[in-house]
Formats: sequence, C-alpha cells, structure tokens
Amino acid sequence: MSAPVIAVVGGGQLARMMAPAAGELGVHLRVLVEAPGSSAAQVVTDAPVGAAADEAAIRDLITPSDGRAPADVLTFEHEHVPNDLLTDLIEHGTPVRPAPHALVQAQDKIVMRRRLTELGAPCPRWAPLPLDPEQGRATLAAFLDEVGGQAVVKTSRGGYDGKGVRVVSSADDATDWLVAAAAGGPQLLVEEKVPFTRELAVLVARRPSGEVRTWPVVESIQRDGVCAEVVAPAPDLSDDEARRARQVAVEIAEGLDVTGVLAVEMFELLDGSADGPPVRRVLVNELAMRPHNSGHWTIDGSVTSQFEQHLRAVLDLPLGDTAPTAPWTVMANVLGSSLPALTDALPEVLGAFPDARVNLYGKDVRPGRKLAHVNVSGQDLGEVRRRALGAAALLRGEPLPTDPTTDETKA
Amino acid sequence: MSAPVIAVVGGGQLARMMAPAAGELGVHLRVLVEAPGSSAAQVVTDAPVGAAADEAAIRDLITPSDGRAPADVLTFEHEHVPNDLLTDLIEHGTPVRPAPHALVQAQDKIVMRRRLTELGAPCPRWAPLPLDPEQGRATLAAFLDEVGGQAVVKTSRGGYDGKGVRVVSSADDATDWLVAAAAGGPQLLVEEKVPFTRELAVLVARRPSGEVRTWPVVESIQRDGVCAEVVAPAPDLSDDEARRARQVAVEIAEGLDVTGVLAVEMFELLDGSADGPPVRRVLVNELAMRPHNSGHWTIDGSVTSQFEQHLRAVLDLPLGDTAPTAPWTVMANVLGSSLPALTDALPEVLGAFPDARVNLYGKDVRPGRKLAHVNVSGQDLGEVRRRALGAAALLRGEPLPTDPTTDETKA
Repeated sequence: MSAPVIAVVGGGQLARMMAPAAGELGVHLRVLVEAPGSSAAQVVTDAPVGAAADEAAIRDLITPSDGRAPADVLTFEHEHVPNDLLTDLIEHGTPVRPAPHALVQAQDKIVMRRRLTELGAPCPRWAPLPLDPEQGRATLAAFLDEVGGQAVVKTSRGGYDGKGVRVVSSADDATDWLVAAAAGGPQLLVEEKVPFTRELAVLVARRPSGEVRTWPVVESIQRDGVCAEVVAPAPDLSDDEARRARQVAVEIAEGLDVTGVLAVEMFELLDGSADGPPVRRVLVNELAMRPHNSGHWTIDGSVTSQFEQHLRAVLDLPLGDTAPTAPWTVMANVLGSSLPALTDALPEVLGAFPDARVNLYGKDVRPGRKLAHVNVSGQDLGEVRRRALGAAALLRGEPLPTDPTTDETKA
Repeated sequence: MSAPVIAVVGGGQLARMMAPAAGELGVHLRVLVEAPGSSAAQVVTDAPVGAAADEAAIRDLITPSDGRAPADVLTFEHEHVPNDLLTDLIEHGTPVRPAPHALVQAQDKIVMRRRLTELGAPCPRWAPLPLDPEQGRATLAAFLDEVGGQAVVKTSRGGYDGKGVRVVSSADDATDWLVAAAAGGPQLLVEEKVPFTRELAVLVARRPSGEVRTWPVVESIQRDGVCAEVVAPAPDLSDDEARRARQVAVEIAEGLDVTGVLAVEMFELLDGSADGPPVRRVLVNELAMRPHNSGHWTIDGSVTSQFEQHLRAVLDLPLGDTAPTAPWTVMANVLGSSLPALTDALPEVLGAFPDARVNLYGKDVRPGRKLAHVNVSGQDLGEVRRRALGAAALLRGEPLPTDPTTDETKA
C-alpha cells in the first residue's frame, strides 16, 4: 500500500497544523486552499487553489486529473462545503468524514438544537423563530416572557466567533434580523441567556468503526466573543463533574454519528444545593466538527494532538492516547498585532519565555485576526498562565503585562 | 520583516523533521534535496533538487534566480558540502552555520582528535597513520604494542553508522586500507579499543551570540554499529556524572565554535575506586554537527526538540528549554522492514500502542535503512522500553517480541 491520501477542504491554520501530524504518520495531505501562499499552502506540498463551494475543485481534490493518487477520504477544516455535493461524493464511493448527515449539525443551529433535544443532551431552552416577521416577533416576545429578561438570538447558519449572535431584551431588538431572515437570510433561533459561571469545552474524536476518545475538559476564556485563552484541564472540576461533561460529548459524537474531531462548547452553571457545595452542571452551547481552537493546547500538552487524532479518525485508524503530558497547559491566542510581522517578536518572546511553545500561522497581520497561539505547560497554574499570556502579549507587540492573569481574569 | 528563510543542504529525514518546527516558528525552509519525492521534499514546499557538491545548486539555494527571497542562513543535515564553497559564501555575506572551521571537525576525524586533544577533552589514545603504507604499518604496530591487544582503525573522512571503522589485532589487518589511503583514499587514524560499559550521547545547541543549552545525557544502544535505541535520560548516572558529561559537550561546542546542534557521542568507562563504588567517566567518540539520531527522543520527550533548537540556533534566536517532559523517553529506530510500506503497519501499531509517537520518514523500504522511529514516554522505564521496542518491531513487520527489553539488552 502506498501512503494514505487525505483531502482537506480549507487552507487556514487548522489545515496547516494537520501537516506535522500527517508527516509523522506518513500520510499524504492534499489541501484545497483559498489562495496561493495561504496559511496551509506554506507547509503543504500538495495544495491546489480553489473555493470550498466549487464542485470541480472538490472533485479534482479527490481524483486529480493529472494522475496524482486519488484521496482515500475527504475531510474539512471548516463546515462550508455544499452538502449535496458531499452526498454525491459518498454515493460514488469517496468516504467523507464527518459525513454530511453529521456535518449539518455543525452547520445549522436549528437542526443541531432539535437533534440534541431528541438525544436528551443538556441544552438551554430554545425555539426556532418562524420566517414570517410578525410570527417571528410573536414567538420571540413569548419566549422572552417565558425566560424572563434577556435572550440570545442567533442565525442558524454562518455565525462564528461571536458573529451571528445578539443579546435581546425585546422583540424590537431583533427586527432587522427578522426582516433579513424573511428576505432569504439565514433563519433565526432564540435561546435563553444562560447565567453561566464560565465556558468549558470537551474535545472528542470518533472513528467510523466506533472507537471514541475524549481529552480532559478545558476552560475556554472568551474576550469579545472570541476564544482568547484555554486552560487545560479546567480548574476546580471534580472527577465526577469532568466525567459527566466528557460523557455528554461522547453521547453527542455517537448520537450524531460524528467521525473525526468534534468540539463541544459548553456553559457551566452552578446549581444551589441545600446540604453541600453548589453542584456544577453543563449545557451544550455550540458544536464544531473539526479540530478547534479549544484543542490547540493538545499539540504540546497531550500525548496525541487533536490534529493527529483527526487524521487517524478520518482514516479509521486506532485513536491515540489523550492523556495530558503536564499538570497544566495554557493556550493563549494572538488576535491581531501591532507588529508588521509576528516573526519580528521572536527574539524577545523566545528570550523571555524559553519554555513557550510558539505557533505562528504565517498570516498577514490584520486587526483581531487569529495569527498565532502560544502553549505553556507546567506545575503551577498561575505561573503557566502568566507565561502564556506574557508570550502572547509580546507577539501582539504589547509590553509585558505586569500581572496578566489578574488583568485577564477581570476582562 | 518577512519570514526568515533557512536554506538546508540535504533532503533526508533530518531535514524532514525540521519542517514542523519551521512551520511553528513561522520560518521558511528551503531544502536542497537529492531527488524529487525525497523524504524532506514530501513535506517542504520549497525543495529544489540538486547535489550537495554542486556549487550552482548551493548558490541558487541561497539566492534563487527566480526572485524567491534570499536565505538568511545556510545550514545542513549532513557534513558533505565542500568547505571551499562554504568559505566563499561566508566571504560574500551569507552566514553558514555551523561554519566550515567548525564543520571540518565533524568531517575529518584526525582534525577532530587533534583539536579535542588541544582542548583537553577526554579522548581515547589515538594516532594518525602516515600515508606511506610501510610507515603506516610501523605506526600501527607500535600503537598496538602500546595499548596491548586490539585497536580501532578508522578512515578520517566519510565514515558513518559503523562504516569506515575496523577493529584490528595486528598491522596486517589494515593492509588493504593502508594501501587505499596511500592511493588517494581517506587518511587513516588508529584509536585504542576502549573497554566501555555503554555508549552515551550529549546533545548541545549553541547560537552565534554564545548561548548554549544541553539536553539530559542519553544512553545510545547500538546494534551492528548503528544506533538502534536511545534511553533518555541515561539510567544510573549520578547528577555529578551527568553534569560532567554535559560540561564536556559544552566545552567542545565552545572550543570548536559550533553553531547549531552538536551531538557528542561518548564511551562510558568504569574506573575502579578503592573506597567506594566505581566511578563513571566518559571519553569522546564521535561528533555530529547537526540534529542527530541520538536526539530524536526530544521531539516528544523534551520541551524543545533538537530540530526546533537547531533552527533557533542558526538564526541566532534565543534557545528553548531542554527539560524533559516525562521521567523516561525511549526512542526505537526502525531499520528496514519486511512490509512493502510502513503505513501498512499503522492499524496494528497504533492499536497496540496508543501512546506510541510514530514518526515515518516517507522512504521506500530497503534492508537496514533508517525508515522511521518511535518514541514512548512514561514513568516506568521497563514498560516504556517494552512499548517502544514493540512498536518498532511491528513497523519492521515482525511479531511482537515476548520480552523485547531482555532480548534487546542481550543483543
């Protein structure tokens, strides 16, 4: 057998970070990139340029017209491939992982909420908003009455990193979105605004033959609706609480028939308890059916990274050990920078933090753009956070914060 | 500043394993490969084909004629580049790291032994053999008389993995080599056959501005003259013994003005001690001025891998933390295989050893060829060795040894 070939749609940092794992496993990666020189194209030798919605480009990715080996499986670094095409590919014999019947659950929040509700997964209260604006207003008003106070209106499709999400106090707050939905925009749903104490995430991998592995539960710290920091494992969870959260993710992966890596973003709530400490429980917030920002810590902090695991899973190879390699790992995102290029910061950041695992994505600097992340592992959580956040600050072109962990926790 | 560009001569597995580190640091790698599809060419997007001794190819690697960015520095995955060319490149402004005045010490064992002797580094007794065969015979005979019994004749240049090395008991045993040397072959030297207890290695990195870091001392287990297994750290060394061995490596790196990674292979000897346990000391065996097989364990077992460290060092960036990430890491080489392709073994090896870090080099199978390695880390050395050797056996197409560590230790 020659080297297995994995076709990946999308040439951003997620596909880029699959490359080292592919090399180690002896797997050939073929990535459909948006433009020459994109993040993944810099490190993948077989990186044709094309759009994710371009049927000819996808077909050529799987069966190249120039005689390169056909792909054994098609997978993704984002959820924006037309499902009709994927279904057709499967019918003609190409495994697509995750398959469209699973992928739709990460593409459409109404489909996802309906299915999770059927599966009995813990979800916030929610309702789809009818397309007719007047009916939509009425449904939203009734929902607000029921939950009391505020709610969150979301577009069912196309939202990410805080986009497509709006907190509303009255139906009037959503008028423009209701009109847009009726005019053919994405349909809307409303969810209760959960009084969560923090956000958690569970990463799970599942292969077609059924094997499932989860990583430890992590805490995901958002700023401006974007993941800024991940602490692995999530502090202060009891073994039971962590086990329950991981079990929720496993049940979703199995219930939705996910193959590959699935990230389950969760809200943590504290329930009062008459005769003891408050009890933590989780509600499912979002799903991502691919390697995810909440799992970048696994590159340096776990025996098997989410990227290697995704490749193993979509090839139906046995999954790797997900044990952490250190008591604590903190991942800090670099979102935008005042530097012309992040490599300008290497002398300072590597000098100040010899143990920081710096991972640059090779992207041009733009405000707020995900440009890099830093992982730091160690014994002392406060020190590990201080170092990860300090290194990320230097890569953003900022001075070292005097006490970044205190600042960041307040933010 | 745009991304730093590192030019690397040689397209084998060492250059291949630099690629993930380059990607993470945002460094552009340009590798001169021996053939299209070579080990490194599979994972490096900028991989022109050319010979290491081809001056035009080396010059184009540094300053491409098609307008690609010039290289900031030239480095190597082997020591076979003509030094005159390197000297000329430096005179015209291209940093070459390690520089030829250092590199020659890893190219020529006579030069190396002479310089190490000057530096006071612990070496076996040795002598260069005169080129005239009769004088060579006489020198060798006198050396054998002096050391008593056996000695090791080596070619000063071109030897590796047990090639260019011969154990002799009399001058007659070296007649053919002496004749070949006189006819223009590589000059010869003789070294005492050291009664070593085991082989150790110390990996050290040094940057031009002087910073030096070493990794823990490792034990290197050879079979048929080739490294088969590395145990990190070397068992049973006292802190003092380990510190002294690391200090020897630092003094050599500084004394030879090495930049980049240097592997110092050592013999361990036990000296009798009248009033206590025997004292361990080391003698320097060989030098390699590049990432080295004895350092592959650092990819998964150290905060900073030797490959990332080499890239940092040749760019004169601050060096990374070399602390181990687990109590024990064992690296097992895969030398040859009965399988048509190593990827055929992935289902079995990943299934049997979910914690094994498998690293395939993308090379066609040939007898005895270095095709892959496996790293396993953990708390219990016996178990870690068993797993690493078991995984390597499966990749060689062999059944799982019942007790590989016992078998291997005897070998």
